[in-house]
Amino acid sequence: MSEVAGRMAVQAGAAHLEKSKGGMGVLLGGVPGVPAAHVVIIGAGVVGTHALQMAVGMGARVTVLDKSVDRLRQLDLVFGNRINTVYSNAQSVEDAVLDADLVIGGVLIPGAAAPKLVTRSMISRMKNGAVVVDVAIDQGGCFETSHATTHTEPTFVVDGVVHYCVANMPGAVARTSTFALNNATIGHAVALADKGWKQALKDNPHLKNGLNVAHGHVTYEAVALALGYPYVSADSLLG
Amino acid sequence: MSEVAGRMAVQAGAAHLEKSKGGMGVLLGGVPGVPAAHVVIIGAGVVGTHALQMAVGMGARVTVLDKSVDRLRQLDLVFGNRINTVYSNAQSVEDAVLDADLVIGGVLIPGAAAPKLVTRSMISRMKNGAVVVDVAIDQGGCFETSHATTHTEPTFVVDGVVHYCVANMPGAVARTSTFALNNATIGHAVALADKGWKQALKDNPHLKNGLNVAHGHVTYEAVALALGYPYVSADSLLG
Amino acid sequence: MSEVAGRMAVQAGAAHLEKSKGGMGVLLGGVPGVPAAHVVIIGAGVVGTHALQMAVGMGARVTVLDKSVDRLRQLDLVFGNRINTVYSNAQSVEDAVLDADLVIGGVLIPGAAAPKLVTRSMISRMKNGAVVVDVAIDQGGCFETSHATTHTEPTFVVDGVVHYCVANMPGAVARTSTFALNNATIGHAVALADKGWKQALKDNPHLKNGLNVAHGHVTYEAVALALGYPYVSADSLLG
Amino acid sequence: MSEVAGRMAVQAGAAHLEKSKGGMGVLLGGVPGVPAAHVVIIGAGVVGTHALQMAVGMGARVTVLDKSVDRLRQLDLVFGNRINTVYSNAQSVEDAVLDADLVIGGVLIPGAAAPKLVTRSMISRMKNGAVVVDVAIDQGGCFETSHATTHTEPTFVVDGVVHYCVANMPGAVARTSTFALNNATIGHAVALADKGWKQALKDNPHLKNGLNVAHGHVTYEAVALALGYPYVSADSLLG
Amino acid sequence: MSEVAGRMAVQAGAAHLEKSKGGMGVLLGGVPGVPAAHVVIIGAGVVGTHALQMAVGMGARVTVLDKSVDRLRQLDLVFGNRINTVYSNAQSVEDAVLDADLVIGGVLIPGAAAPKLVTRSMISRMKNGAVVVDVAIDQGGCFETSHATTHTEPTFVVDGVVHYCVANMPGAVARTSTFALNNATIGHAVALADKGWKQALKDNPHLKNGLNVAHGHVTYEAVALALGYPYVSADSLLG
Amino acid sequence: MSEVAGRMAVQAGAAHLEKSKGGMGVLLGGVPGVPAAHVVIIGAGVVGTHALQMAVGMGARVTVLDKSVDRLRQLDLVFGNRINTVYSNAQSVEDAVLDADLVIGGVLIPGAAAPKLVTRSMISRMKNGAVVVDVAIDQGGCFETSHATTHTEPTFVVDGVVHYCVANMPGAVARTSTFALNNATIGHAVALADKGWKQALKDNPHLKNGLNVAHGHVTYEAVALALGYPYVSADSLLG
Repeated sequence: MSEVAGRMAVQAGAAHLEKSKGGMGVLLGGVPGVPAAHVVIIGAGVVGTHALQMAVGMGARVTVLDKSVDRLRQLDLVFGNRINTVYSNAQSVEDAVLDADLVIGGVLIPGAAAPKLVTRSMISRMKNGAVVVDVAIDQGGCFETSHATTHTEPTFVVDGVVHYCVANMPGAVARTSTFALNNATIGHAVALADKGWKQALKDNPHLKNGLNVAHGHVTYEAVALALGYPYVSADSLLG
Repeated sequence: MSEVAGRMAVQAGAAHLEKSKGGMGVLLGGVPGVPAAHVVIIGAGVVGTHALQMAVGMGARVTVLDKSVDRLRQLDLVFGNRINTVYSNAQSVEDAVLDADLVIGGVLIPGAAAPKLVTRSMISRMKNGAVVVDVAIDQGGCFETSHATTHTEPTFVVDGVVHYCVANMPGAVARTSTFALNNATIGHAVALADKGWKQALKDNPHLKNGLNVAHGHVTYEAVALALGYPYVSADSLLG
Repeated sequence: MSEVAGRMAVQAGAAHLEKSKGGMGVLLGGVPGVPAAHVVIIGAGVVGTHALQMAVGMGARVTVLDKSVDRLRQLDLVFGNRINTVYSNAQSVEDAVLDADLVIGGVLIPGAAAPKLVTRSMISRMKNGAVVVDVAIDQGGCFETSHATTHTEPTFVVDGVVHYCVANMPGAVARTSTFALNNATIGHAVALADKGWKQALKDNPHLKNGLNVAHGHVTYEAVALALGYPYVSADSLLG
Repeated sequence: MSEVAGRMAVQAGAAHLEKSKGGMGVLLGGVPGVPAAHVVIIGAGVVGTHALQMAVGMGARVTVLDKSVDRLRQLDLVFGNRINTVYSNAQSVEDAVLDADLVIGGVLIPGAAAPKLVTRSMISRMKNGAVVVDVAIDQGGCFETSHATTHTEPTFVVDGVVHYCVANMPGAVARTSTFALNNATIGHAVALADKGWKQALKDNPHLKNGLNVAHGHVTYEAVALALGYPYVSADSLLG
Repeated sequence: MSEVAGRMAVQAGAAHLEKSKGGMGVLLGGVPGVPAAHVVIIGAGVVGTHALQMAVGMGARVTVLDKSVDRLRQLDLVFGNRINTVYSNAQSVEDAVLDADLVIGGVLIPGAAAPKLVTRSMISRMKNGAVVVDVAIDQGGCFETSHATTHTEPTFVVDGVVHYCVANMPGAVARTSTFALNNATIGHAVALADKGWKQALKDNPHLKNGLNVAHGHVTYEAVALALGYPYVSADSLLG
Repeated sequence: MSEVAGRMAVQAGAAHLEKSKGGMGVLLGGVPGVPAAHVVIIGAGVVGTHALQMAVGMGARVTVLDKSVDRLRQLDLVFGNRINTVYSNAQSVEDAVLDADLVIGGVLIPGAAAPKLVTRSMISRMKNGAVVVDVAIDQGGCFETSHATTHTEPTFVVDGVVHYCVANMPGAVARTSTFALNNATIGHAVALADKGWKQALKDNPHLKNGLNVAHGHVTYEAVALALGYPYVSADSLLG
């Protein structure tokens, strides 16, 4: 799903840079003789990588920030000087955001609230009519000014900056998302059908880690903690 | 302007393939493991070339049709097997359109109505939720089912196919379009200011061809004919 | 050797699509204005990756199928929309094969018979004059209709489909294959010469795993089992 | 047709570098760690350009020679350092040929015998098992040692060098060639059918130049001269 | 020679960005995580195109300015978003120069002094340690602050900006330049040797245009004018 | 720092191929019609990979040698036929070096003297005016003829071959190097400041491995050994 969301983020951002959608009226890739928009992508994980593939493809000027120099190196090897890789820190994020026409926030920390990397103060100093897309909105968002929206009313404006914060972004391309989800899950479904759930979970630790509730017990520690139920390990139920 | 329109056509088409915009819910570039959408571009002129740059960049499967084999050769040299070049005739247009998820119509014949290359019958047999973008709508459109729309209400549906036929497409990215227009016209404006209009038109046949009315006379033959005025040649007034 | 076989598979497939070799008479890469052939590659391991490099390079339309979404992602990052990545299952294999002009079967499961992914029924419904190349023929082949052939008589025809199933494909480019093999083995040879075989095997578990027979004992379990000899572990003989 | 022949030339050359076809047993693109074959293309016209697209795509080391520095510049802009462009003269042709594993001769002078750019002496000093493909064989060939062959018996060997000199190379991929020919000629056929031959020839000087015989007169000067008939201009018969 | 000078200009500029050569100590292509230098190329003719190939190749962020939108379109088609194409005017030149780390001036107007596109005022506001390379120095230079230098003492500093203005830049790579010059002139030399100079000049108007002095008469009008000699047309002497 | 050194090595090598710097006077990337220089890169680690990115970008003909076929495969997947990958052994190194115009030596074995892969005998048989750049000079160099130099006097000549052996190459681009170093170390600095050194070293084994001296004890075994001090493990001091 992160792949779909990453690619859609740029497409949605480009669409909302149009004047009639509240944006500043620039074409993402420019045209020969007219500069392209500057797309800043925060986070070079799955979301960020797919966002940058799309932004590069649409002809934007692209800056990607991440804290992993190794990840930046891999992207540099593949994309060369079609992208600008920048080590992420408070200063470099601010510099990039203030120069951006479109910012994609794609920093997700598994099982934790997304860090607020872009502050309200930065937003207020961005270009008028710029667009931000918060792909981390399901985990609280990585812009201080974000709150979740829907496909019906996908955007709101703060300090002249269009915020696109649709919570279920992949839902817009349901057909593509369904196939992507199928590809990721069909193997597990077949294993469950063929072996029964106990054997399937024993054979595959990743599947076992996904077990939340069994025989009336909560088997996922963080959930048990959050909801005040006693936690029972999955292993103890697979006997 | 054709450059802006060509690039925007794909961006608009991608946006309207989303479910909430009436489309079939596919992501233009797909994701790894899920096929990309098939974008068919009719006409490999300026509009078509910029549309294909964008479609290729967004990761679509792209077929471009044109009647000039020389033009197809040039595109093949630059894009190689990232695009599929097809010689355009009634049969090949029909084959491509019926297999398409998005069709960009970009065939413009200067000073003439655009030919209706895609018939109502083809439209009715297209995939449900497919999108067509008619970049030739200012000259009557190259889809039989097209009629002009606006940015406020950009689309309508015929036989399950979403039609995007905004008459002034570049208006959506006014900032980019203005700079592009400036680049194309500033030289003429400087010449007019420096030399006076008569000398400027004498020195530049392209500028002279653009003269429509002078000293109360219509100097553009097609306009004179169409409106029933006597035609006076531009040369006779430049003395 | 898999690299050589993968690259040769496309070259051999292209040659046998020629009319005089029994194929349908299409040029793999097409020419501008005429569609390229559709090459379907089943399996994205070493064989499949090298086959797709070659097929992309020759200008074909390429679809690659694999069960690993991670592997498809890596290929998508490098090849972008020059290839079509599809998650492999019975349905998607059938769809791809029936639309193909050339199918490369490159699914190898180490130490096991190759799975029969393409059935006789699929073969019978393929295009007339299509070509299949079975790179897994040394392990039984991944087409139900395959049987091993030689460089002297490399092909046979089943239901109008040309089968290229040469058992020792790299033998055709002996010079390249020899250097490739040298590169892979020279390090081991030097270790054996420098340290003696016992020490060399102790120092390198991969080399040790390759030991089949020593001091009259069979030290490779699968071989011992298959031939009815007692199995003796390599470790027990390295003293 | 030149496009088909140019692309096929490399494919045929690669196939005949295989040991069983008489070649030196090298894989055109090599594999990682083993050098690719050196493909030398003489002439950067349509044949040469399509040959080099294919050779580059298959991973060969490619040198292209031509007398037009402008043409070399265009190719350098598109292919960059994936090819080596060399100004063609007797010395540079000899240097390149002696280092080559595969030589494609694609120098055609319209209406004249192809120049013998590669001499018998050069052939005799080439690597043993090298391959030459003479795409100019229909006009006499550009290798001194060439003579026309057929798809049934496509090659012969001179001084250890395999000669592939099939006169009708595009015939091997009849399907692709037919579509390519259709694309190039259909416009003329439609004009002849719509307007009658006289008007069609009056409207199109290229078509008129192609007229050989009309009303019992030879209208093509070179043919009239060669066969001893009186020459009558096409214009005089179109009245 | 313009090709050599264009490519060398970037190489020389990169070298002089090093600290020990007076530059600001930045690596042209940056490294992953650290921004690349911004190279601004003024003029997209032969010099500019070769400079941009090199700058793109070295991984710089590249902006190219020109007054021909058609030329910018061609470059955009080939280089896509690896370069930024900007329509050249006083404002856009100033904006680009002030943001640049390296400026290549490559605007040459045949037979005229190069225009002073970069003023002293712009130079004084450039970054400290930036480098400018004036490829038009042989025609007076396109920086107001330029004066010709030699390979022995190639640079001087004005307002903290390193100026590289070597008059005979290609002399540094004499071997490459000699071959390039040979390729461009050998055809003329052969024609002169084969036909005698009169016939050779009659057959080739370009060669004739190059005649400066014959039979004691000045045959090049601009030279005659400049030096106060009577002008005699080449044609009148070729009789 | 290896990234900076790898990229600078090619830039420095290109500059010293100029005639006025003692080189043979060739332009690294050649120009259309004139062959590019042959750059040989020994070692495909971080130094070698960045050197090859730059050499490819500058348009050179590039050969890279390494003992890891896996590494060569990865590079082949990304760079395709823009580079020539060769398995490294005494013979292949000699063949490549003797044909080279520029050799980059980038073989570093952590904590050991660099191996002398290029012998004095090879150097003496290289082309006159060729250049070698020894990136391993800090560890003794990988050319038998190397000795460390400085930015003030960066080169010396042995047997007609220019040696560039600056010990602190990244110092030339101090600004880029400082940012690169910051990116690599800032995380450690923050950890030390936030947690105190003991906890920081306990939490991060890589940081702990970097401890050389603590509480008056040498905690790095190789250093203790080399300098004759008693060795105390870091762990024993972190209590």
